[in-house]
Amino acid sequence: MKKEFTNNDEASRPIGVFDSGVGGLTVVKELNKLLPNEKIIYFGDTGRVPYGNKSRETIIHYSLQVAYFLMKKKIKMLVIACNTASSVSLPTLKRHFHIPIIGVIEPGAKSAIETTRSNNIGVIGTLGTVKSNAYKKALKKIKRGVNVTQDPCPLFVHLAEDGWNNNKIAQLISDEYLKAFKGKNIDTLILGCTHYPLLKGVIQKSVGDKVELIDSGKETAKEVNRILGKKKLLNSHKMTEKNHSIFYVSDLPHKFKEVSQRFLSKELKHVHKVKL
Amino acid sequence: MKKEFTNNDEASRPIGVFDSGVGGLTVVKELNKLLPNEKIIYFGDTGRVPYGNKSRETIIHYSLQVAYFLMKKKIKMLVIACNTASSVSLPTLKRHFHIPIIGVIEPGAKSAIETTRSNNIGVIGTLGTVKSNAYKKALKKIKRGVNVTQDPCPLFVHLAEDGWNNNKIAQLISDEYLKAFKGKNIDTLILGCTHYPLLKGVIQKSVGDKVELIDSGKETAKEVNRILGKKKLLNSHKMTEKNHSIFYVSDLPHKFKEVSQRFLSKELKHVHKVKL
Repeated sequence: MKKEFTNNDEASRPIGVFDSGVGGLTVVKELNKLLPNEKIIYFGDTGRVPYGNKSRETIIHYSLQVAYFLMKKKIKMLVIACNTASSVSLPTLKRHFHIPIIGVIEPGAKSAIETTRSNNIGVIGTLGTVKSNAYKKALKKIKRGVNVTQDPCPLFVHLAEDGWNNNKIAQLISDEYLKAFKGKNIDTLILGCTHYPLLKGVIQKSVGDKVELIDSGKETAKEVNRILGKKKLLNSHKMTEKNHSIFYVSDLPHKFKEVSQRFLSKELKHVHKVKL
Repeated sequence: MKKEFTNNDEASRPIGVFDSGVGGLTVVKELNKLLPNEKIIYFGDTGRVPYGNKSRETIIHYSLQVAYFLMKKKIKMLVIACNTASSVSLPTLKRHFHIPIIGVIEPGAKSAIETTRSNNIGVIGTLGTVKSNAYKKALKKIKRGVNVTQDPCPLFVHLAEDGWNNNKIAQLISDEYLKAFKGKNIDTLILGCTHYPLLKGVIQKSVGDKVELIDSGKETAKEVNRILGKKKLLNSHKMTEKNHSIFYVSDLPHKFKEVSQRFLSKELKHVHKVKL
């Protein structure tokens, strides 16, 4: 059964953004840059993070719970700012709700296709994302003849969350994972997890300067802009003290605040813990 | 409100063992060795793993849900085979249920005190375990004058689960973490997470041969033996094909089966997925 959420002043409503934890903040950062008038309601499922090591069924169940929570906040659009949830739950969420819903996969894939010259694209992500083949399918849908090499990098999420993003060990782990692309002649690498932009430095060193890194967050922000523009849903009013972005988490709001500084380079004021 | 579970043939009932995931299998392995007649009902909360990065409140909530599930299986004793849950939830679980309940902290602490000569003990574990100071308190309760140095090693869980337990990167990460004990003159190190025995090799190299590693799993199995013996609850009947140990998980039973081989060195037959 589809649920309708209508309102006369639709453009002034917030954009819903969700992730299993803090990774989605890389998407929020890009949204803030490109669309400073847009109010965001963010949900980080920190009580059940990470999603990357869970089953399809469980990820869909969690995603639906989060989406229902955000729908009640009368969002005008939903962004699944988590590669694992995007790759697994997007079709189900689209069937359940009428507002525009996008994940981070298609925007990232589109940008990679526009970037590659060699036609050889690499994808790194969680085990869940890689196993789903979501990027491979999205890339092949745009350009059938493209060659895609995928490799899961499960430790990267933990390195990013623990702030080990630029030390010797991070570099060694990165080198070890990215060996998978040796001899594949890739010129474009999709960072298929919203945590990975924090490790850009070490990843770039592992693959060399000639490989272009695709940050899905940036591309997703552009896609949000395009969709809201087309639907005449862009907010023309500036955000105010009263009408600001709000962040919800299912656990540890203080830790979220602390870690979010690394992602947003600013302190979050409004982080609330809720039970789904 | 306390719940009573009585039965005439109490000794033939299973022992309940729970962990956030697969780590508790290191305790199962020791129980199987020491008490081959005992049937085990295991619950691995793989749908919400890990616990180490969650709050006290959330860990207690999850632990109660798991304990209620196991109580319905008419267990005669409950072992919290997870350091994080032991350090946070043990007092609450003891208040809720009448059967004997033990965690892995006290047995590990007891063994460390029996082992140390220098009176300087190190503890490694998840962030949750270290922050709770559970080992420190347990050690000081037995011997007030002992010096305790703690250090969280959050990446170890993921190294163990991904099978990276004995490579160059595991060694480097281990060396980096265990620097915390340089100059502390420790002669005993508690592996305060049930995953860590899989990394014994690299950990031993990092701290040197003179430091004794304490595996809480072994000590916990001895404590189970002691308690069941005292209460005349040891099972004298051999396990049969019909009456065997059963393993429940909240997600990904196949992955659990696969990973469990690394922990138990045998294939598990009976792994079921359940919703709590």
